[in-house]
Amino acid sequence: MWYVSYPECGLRKHARWATGAGSIHGSLRRMRFGVCYYPEQWPEDRWAIDAAAMVDLGLELVRIGEFAWAKMEPTRDSFDWGWLDRAIETLSSAGLGVVLGTPTATPPVWLMREHPEIMSVASDGRPRPYGSRRHTCPTSERFREESVRIVTAMVERYGDDEGVVAWQIDNEPGNHDSARCWCDPCQNAFTEWLERRYGTIASLNDAWGAEFWSTTYPDFESIVLPKPTVTSHSPSLLLAHRRFAADQVISGLEAQAEIIAAGAPAHPFTSNLYFGDRELNPRRVAGIGGLASCDAYPQGTSGPIEARFNLALHRSAAPTAWVMEHQAGRINWTERNAHVGEGQVAQWMREAAAEGMDAFLFFRWRAGRSGQEQYHTGLLDHHGEPGPSYEEIRKTIGELADATPTDAPRAALLWDIEDLWSIDSEVHAPGATHSALTL
Amino acid sequence: MWYVSYPECGLRKHARWATGAGSIHGSLRRMRFGVCYYPEQWPEDRWAIDAAAMVDLGLELVRIGEFAWAKMEPTRDSFDWGWLDRAIETLSSAGLGVVLGTPTATPPVWLMREHPEIMSVASDGRPRPYGSRRHTCPTSERFREESVRIVTAMVERYGDDEGVVAWQIDNEPGNHDSARCWCDPCQNAFTEWLERRYGTIASLNDAWGAEFWSTTYPDFESIVLPKPTVTSHSPSLLLAHRRFAADQVISGLEAQAEIIAAGAPAHPFTSNLYFGDRELNPRRVAGIGGLASCDAYPQGTSGPIEARFNLALHRSAAPTAWVMEHQAGRINWTERNAHVGEGQVAQWMREAAAEGMDAFLFFRWRAGRSGQEQYHTGLLDHHGEPGPSYEEIRKTIGELADATPTDAPRAALLWDIEDLWSIDSEVHAPGATHSALTL
Amino acid sequence: MWYVSYPECGLRKHARWATGAGSIHGSLRRMRFGVCYYPEQWPEDRWAIDAAAMVDLGLELVRIGEFAWAKMEPTRDSFDWGWLDRAIETLSSAGLGVVLGTPTATPPVWLMREHPEIMSVASDGRPRPYGSRRHTCPTSERFREESVRIVTAMVERYGDDEGVVAWQIDNEPGNHDSARCWCDPCQNAFTEWLERRYGTIASLNDAWGAEFWSTTYPDFESIVLPKPTVTSHSPSLLLAHRRFAADQVISGLEAQAEIIAAGAPAHPFTSNLYFGDRELNPRRVAGIGGLASCDAYPQGTSGPIEARFNLALHRSAAPTAWVMEHQAGRINWTERNAHVGEGQVAQWMREAAAEGMDAFLFFRWRAGRSGQEQYHTGLLDHHGEPGPSYEEIRKTIGELADATPTDAPRAALLWDIEDLWSIDSEVHAPGATHSALTL
Repeated sequence: MWYVSYPECGLRKHARWATGAGSIHGSLRRMRFGVCYYPEQWPEDRWAIDAAAMVDLGLELVRIGEFAWAKMEPTRDSFDWGWLDRAIETLSSAGLGVVLGTPTATPPVWLMREHPEIMSVASDGRPRPYGSRRHTCPTSERFREESVRIVTAMVERYGDDEGVVAWQIDNEPGNHDSARCWCDPCQNAFTEWLERRYGTIASLNDAWGAEFWSTTYPDFESIVLPKPTVTSHSPSLLLAHRRFAADQVISGLEAQAEIIAAGAPAHPFTSNLYFGDRELNPRRVAGIGGLASCDAYPQGTSGPIEARFNLALHRSAAPTAWVMEHQAGRINWTERNAHVGEGQVAQWMREAAAEGMDAFLFFRWRAGRSGQEQYHTGLLDHHGEPGPSYEEIRKTIGELADATPTDAPRAALLWDIEDLWSIDSEVHAPGATHSALTL
Repeated sequence: MWYVSYPECGLRKHARWATGAGSIHGSLRRMRFGVCYYPEQWPEDRWAIDAAAMVDLGLELVRIGEFAWAKMEPTRDSFDWGWLDRAIETLSSAGLGVVLGTPTATPPVWLMREHPEIMSVASDGRPRPYGSRRHTCPTSERFREESVRIVTAMVERYGDDEGVVAWQIDNEPGNHDSARCWCDPCQNAFTEWLERRYGTIASLNDAWGAEFWSTTYPDFESIVLPKPTVTSHSPSLLLAHRRFAADQVISGLEAQAEIIAAGAPAHPFTSNLYFGDRELNPRRVAGIGGLASCDAYPQGTSGPIEARFNLALHRSAAPTAWVMEHQAGRINWTERNAHVGEGQVAQWMREAAAEGMDAFLFFRWRAGRSGQEQYHTGLLDHHGEPGPSYEEIRKTIGELADATPTDAPRAALLWDIEDLWSIDSEVHAPGATHSALTL
Repeated sequence: MWYVSYPECGLRKHARWATGAGSIHGSLRRMRFGVCYYPEQWPEDRWAIDAAAMVDLGLELVRIGEFAWAKMEPTRDSFDWGWLDRAIETLSSAGLGVVLGTPTATPPVWLMREHPEIMSVASDGRPRPYGSRRHTCPTSERFREESVRIVTAMVERYGDDEGVVAWQIDNEPGNHDSARCWCDPCQNAFTEWLERRYGTIASLNDAWGAEFWSTTYPDFESIVLPKPTVTSHSPSLLLAHRRFAADQVISGLEAQAEIIAAGAPAHPFTSNLYFGDRELNPRRVAGIGGLASCDAYPQGTSGPIEARFNLALHRSAAPTAWVMEHQAGRINWTERNAHVGEGQVAQWMREAAAEGMDAFLFFRWRAGRSGQEQYHTGLLDHHGEPGPSYEEIRKTIGELADATPTDAPRAALLWDIEDLWSIDSEVHAPGATHSALTL
């Protein structure tokens, strides 16, 4: 990564949020804390209690909405904004700045039933059905239209909402290896992408060294997406597929960005990248909205070095960088979900401060009582009472309010996601990345 | 598990076997020994030699028949009972009580060719063809009819056979993850099952917390069996699928039980559960015939704690509990099939006695010379001579004949297979079960 | 393996190469060194430089052509021999003996597009597309015809070429588990193969012990290729499938051998077996051309014992035995590709000499700058300068020129690939082979 100097916090452009009254202050380089919240999972009469507790804890930001398409639009074109109006109002009137997520990571079941061609297809040719998330083909024109439709509706409703301080586009684009899809439209788009990139098939054959193993292609149509076969595909084909897939995803994010930039001009926006995501270039994603953001689940990495590296990588990607999700205790999705001892969360908060992150949102406010992440810790436990790190978090927020971020280090590291894609095609050492090497 | 008190051995109800003359005695709480035998794998003139040797060794029970459908019915409706008549006669006249297995775990090739729709379908949509065992869909109406047909024929033939002391229904129902099937009839039956369980789709969406990740279902038809997808399915969907699958398998066992109860009223019956089976609730299966039975392959478990736990679990499931298959030496199906040293088999026998098991059958009498389990130890080696533990077994049977089972411990452990299914959907620690935790 | 005595080096039959003038000498039992070379990957004006350097290093043999079908025949029936004429001329006039490979391991893309039915099918029913190598069904009649066509054309062109000293048929037949294919023609051929082998279905059922698990087959048509199913298939079915698959591959090699024997009578020929190949019997393959050859990648084995065993196995398979490919440094295809320290390559060369190998070809002359094996070491690095072991190799070639091979050891080991196939179907200890046992 290159450590960039950032003369001004991008958020300062956004007058109300950055300089306004209330609990959100405009001082440059002060880290703000926040949390991810799912009002759709809790009774409405709980919302105000939660909001007050968040503010009491020292939180200033709350991200909502990113998985709630089915709640916003229970059936086609029949939008239900009432609950979201009330959620934003409740949270912002308590003094919190709302980060509003577009829900395109979880298109609802009714939409998938209506247009099954949206479904992502795995490398073995099998569709990847709804029931989890990111089950969409990044090339699908129909899904592009549907995304534009829901985002346009959201922006029309909340584009000038004073409670909203920033937008998040999609959620963890590329996560779960969802960028690459093997459907027919992707095959066709890949053919066109190759033709645009290489011009002539002779030029591609030359660039890919197709003489070896007789993979010389007679035409662009004969280059098939890399389905599993006898042994390894050409690393050039694999790399081209990664580049193409990233382009398709980025293009989807840009389509949303255009709508938000036009309809919500006072709001910065971002798309949070999964911590350790190997699909998208953080700089390119951060460039869309001018705000870098990432997840940070240190226990999901190979250790502290990789965890810090990821923060630094995103910190360098844009003038303003947020941790959009940070683990607040035990997580649920690793092979062994270890205990998080006393003092650990405070240490993670200080590390993010030391890296110069502008905001730090915990995932999540309260542990869910149903659904896929119900074993994931929240600041509140399932029963709604403070979890084990709650007071530690309060104390550390206070401590960091007085801290001045350290100067950015002057060391520079060269990092290129295309290198990482190449490493992935021939690893040499299991788990090797730029940031972590298991020797 | 709850340790239940069992005022009376269920077998005592069955007059001849429990109280009759000959080698099978009615004394309550004395552990009987036996063995699994495949007369169809050996020449008929060997059977009497084997039977005499079994009795000489101190065995009282012999299980036969559970994989012999093709031998009982070589072509449709053309039954060949002669060999089985002679086998039962030979064994029982030597003084052994025959446990007769219904052969529904291995429908013959001709039946699968005639009705390929019986075939189980894996989660990736591929049929699981014949050639091994348990390759049948638990929902298949055709297979239900065929099962009823063969069991009815067996019960007509042997329902009042004095040589038969108990029946085994099917074999290891659920083993090899065979309870869950992804075929179209299973999809339809699952839809109906969900509707019966939840009544309305709103009730299901509420119970499953479908708001999270926008998995709100518009109707029961839109809930598809959990095929592999981008990332995790809702744990509620996964749990519902396990419950449904167990219901389908249990319903098949009950259909057989009804025929046996009606046609063989003097015989107790059971369905042996694979040791470590995660598909079916042992109490529910034991409840069908009033007799619990399980396999016990200690080297296939995580160690002595899990091995003992499984015995205790089955011991508590019914007034009478049998080890229907117990390893007698090296097994063939684990990743590393370790040597079984001197004294090991005796120790396992004593452990089963200490747990209060009513019967203990070794698997198997003689190591097979062909087929899938040919590397599995028997009491006799492949060449028909006693294997390494033979005399140790004789000695230990003698020793345990004089032993009084210890009192059941008064400790109680809460165990619920639905907990186990939930753990399976999000393990947290590889290999974790109620009975074994690899930390 | 049986250590055979070999009264005469097979190569002596081939007058020019074995006894002729120039750099290739006829002395019996002197190990010759050589290298694998891909002229199609480098500019023509580099060839002479490379050839001179090879000779300067002490190399006498150079293998070329085995992956160059697309270069030899860019479109159907439009052969381009010019480059190959010039490559052979350049190499042989420098004093090197050319080993010419038939390119049937890598049929070109245009051929696969024209005849997709040639494609190999995996056990899950999915075709294994072009893009890597060995993506062909060994049973395919169309592919047999195409193989015969290209080999005939090559033999017509180079059958009496004085620069060619030996032929290699195909490349690593069976490697990447490519011998077994699950396509419809393979199914039909398997049925016929079984009928030829067993005569009657009763005889097969008896030999396979089909009584167990009710796998009694009503007819040969009902025996399906062993697709993945619930649990293990009969080891007899698995073994039959391996035998059948080997027969299909061998038959393809023989079809090529016949053409070479007729059209290039002065040339010995061989088909190199992948080091550690579990698909084909080395003796049977060596028997085709009277010359055994194998790959040797010691770091791809479980260690020195297995590495030496493989040399000895091939050494014993024919009067003359070559290492057709030997690693010259770090390889690219294992999970962890370890550093190759100073002296390691020299040791491997001495080990091969001690085993009595007649020739030893390094893989490869120069590290590729594109394609699947671009991270594989060559004697020259990617930029065309000597790699780290270059001078060590020169020194060791000199040292071994004066060495007399040790007498063949008199110990005999019984080795049978059908045993290995049986072990594969039930391993008992992960990684177990005849030559390596991880305990």
